[in-house]
Amino acid sequence: MTLRFGIDATVATGGRSGRLWTPHGVVETPVFMPVGTAGSVKGVDPEALAGVGVEMILANTYHLHLRPGEDVVADIGGLHGFTGWRGPILTDSGGFQVFSLAALRTLDDDGVRFQSHIDGAHLALTPESVVGIQESLGADIIMPLDHCPPHDATGGDLEAAVRRTTLWARRSLAARRRPDQAMFGIVQGGVDVALRRRHLDTLAALPFEGYALGGLSVGEPLEEMYRVLARVAPHMPGDRPRYLMGVGSPDAVIEAVRRGIDMFDSVYPTRMGRHGTVMTADGPMNIRNAAHARGAGPLDPSCDCPTCTGFSRAYIRHLIKSREILGYRLATVHNLAFMARLMQNLRRALREDALEAFRTDFWRRYYRDVPPPG
Amino acid sequence: MTLRFGIDATVATGGRSGRLWTPHGVVETPVFMPVGTAGSVKGVDPEALAGVGVEMILANTYHLHLRPGEDVVADIGGLHGFTGWRGPILTDSGGFQVFSLAALRTLDDDGVRFQSHIDGAHLALTPESVVGIQESLGADIIMPLDHCPPHDATGGDLEAAVRRTTLWARRSLAARRRPDQAMFGIVQGGVDVALRRRHLDTLAALPFEGYALGGLSVGEPLEEMYRVLARVAPHMPGDRPRYLMGVGSPDAVIEAVRRGIDMFDSVYPTRMGRHGTVMTADGPMNIRNAAHARGAGPLDPSCDCPTCTGFSRAYIRHLIKSREILGYRLATVHNLAFMARLMQNLRRALREDALEAFRTDFWRRYYRDVPPPG
Repeated sequence: MTLRFGIDATVATGGRSGRLWTPHGVVETPVFMPVGTAGSVKGVDPEALAGVGVEMILANTYHLHLRPGEDVVADIGGLHGFTGWRGPILTDSGGFQVFSLAALRTLDDDGVRFQSHIDGAHLALTPESVVGIQESLGADIIMPLDHCPPHDATGGDLEAAVRRTTLWARRSLAARRRPDQAMFGIVQGGVDVALRRRHLDTLAALPFEGYALGGLSVGEPLEEMYRVLARVAPHMPGDRPRYLMGVGSPDAVIEAVRRGIDMFDSVYPTRMGRHGTVMTADGPMNIRNAAHARGAGPLDPSCDCPTCTGFSRAYIRHLIKSREILGYRLATVHNLAFMARLMQNLRRALREDALEAFRTDFWRRYYRDVPPPG
Repeated sequence: MTLRFGIDATVATGGRSGRLWTPHGVVETPVFMPVGTAGSVKGVDPEALAGVGVEMILANTYHLHLRPGEDVVADIGGLHGFTGWRGPILTDSGGFQVFSLAALRTLDDDGVRFQSHIDGAHLALTPESVVGIQESLGADIIMPLDHCPPHDATGGDLEAAVRRTTLWARRSLAARRRPDQAMFGIVQGGVDVALRRRHLDTLAALPFEGYALGGLSVGEPLEEMYRVLARVAPHMPGDRPRYLMGVGSPDAVIEAVRRGIDMFDSVYPTRMGRHGTVMTADGPMNIRNAAHARGAGPLDPSCDCPTCTGFSRAYIRHLIKSREILGYRLATVHNLAFMARLMQNLRRALREDALEAFRTDFWRRYYRDVPPPG
């Protein structure tokens, strides 16, 4: 095992805190991974990421395969050498981007053929090529190609996606050549709990170093996702990390942590920041709002990030409204600091067996009058 | 006098090194000021600016007047509080931007009426309003509204611009209320040396704390500018800073320093960087070029900036080609480090009376086979 995972606290709802040892350092869990789509968390250099408490990042295989190509990244020392980020990295399989970005997909058991969204080039991904690409990229954790159906897929379509994902999971494991990378299995099944549980049991018998839930947070109501989490997460292998893909809003992260999820990734905080929505202790705030035009104070008075200690709301509003790229950076840095602090607080609450109180307090303040689900 | 200026070395061609004391710190001259158009040097926070040796910046009155408005900036502590840049700042008069960006200008002795390039709003600038705006912005050095004619203006048009600029200079001085800001006179006259000298003599009799050459580097051949510099700069008051507006390419900076210019501003290094042209000891380099696709080394092996010590050519090329904003930042930081180092080297050469040798060496290496002018 290239990955070591240890749990140091568990609470009654299933939530747990722990540590993940990777070839590029130890990560405390639950962890949130910002997304460095094309090999950069938009606008933020690795030093600034580390400065606000980011421990691990995700990079997109699809984007890096298209540009600059995994061979270029490999030449420059893999993703760590290429991006300058020295901590742990996870790469996704590219499948999700093929389904959401690429044109003219054709899909069969062999893999997926598609056209690049950049230049229309005809490309293909197979389970084997996806492993090869990720081995060139050199992340600490890699993901097998999976078939992620749309959120409104039902019956036969969901079953077919599960079957194909299992087929590809086996082929992905067989294709592995690098002993220093971990690979997680991806559980599909939409919001069909029985199907998810069956898929999970199938994959749990395979030698994956962790398990991910795919195909959630793809458009279904949040309550549906919470229901699936409550009934599936407890059955995921307890001694291996549990990763909920594509989730990064505070509500969903807290609810999933409560159910025992250890890892998250999402463009949510970075994309929101670029659009001018900043996360504060009192909830999300649209900095473009005229109310902030003369705001001399920081985005969040309780935040100690470089944005909040150095710049006023008025300045950040001005930059964002003027489309100045420094504005995107400053808002992103703040939102990442917010997320890192949220994860820290969640870990502390788990270790002190105080998650329910933390959850109630957080929901009350961040979401005002909206009660937590369930 | 709010500004103190001292010269510590002069060379035979007229070049000199010195120091400029401002309310926000001491600047060594000759100095290059990066441009923070809308209150930010695009993509680079103040800490990173200072980190690469930037000593002083310029901000554009026109842009800040339109958005967010000088009253907002004043509310947040002036430009220093607003932007977080704690060093010296110079604001231009806005006149140049009115002439180059705004629509439907009408110009008379009272001032200029125009439409905002952002929202088409009908606006006006007068010498008095421009002083008022800059007093609200709170820079260390402010500039009077001037009439900058196009580079191909001749005869009567040039004369009229000079006459109007003088009129406005007097009105600007009369409008001043803040004793802690310095104001420079702006010499016009195109490439007509006699007219420039006459204008200079007129303005030199007025109580300006420094003198600027406006209306150069606006499209005329560089040789024309060099000719004007050689014949006008020596007559600018020697005990006050001499500022060549809008110039920032290494060739022009070196030639102007040689003729006794102390201050420069230009978007050249920052704009070039965003477009992927990086300045190296061996000349400008287009990082978008395919030759750099697998470049594992830094942009410039002789550079110690955070970009060159942290990132490969291949990565920066990838970011710029992918329009990732981190790429703009990294290239800009490098180009600003290059310019800061060039100015340092020029100051050292002036102090060691070795400017001619430095100039020959620099031209030979940076511009390859192109000999220096004259």
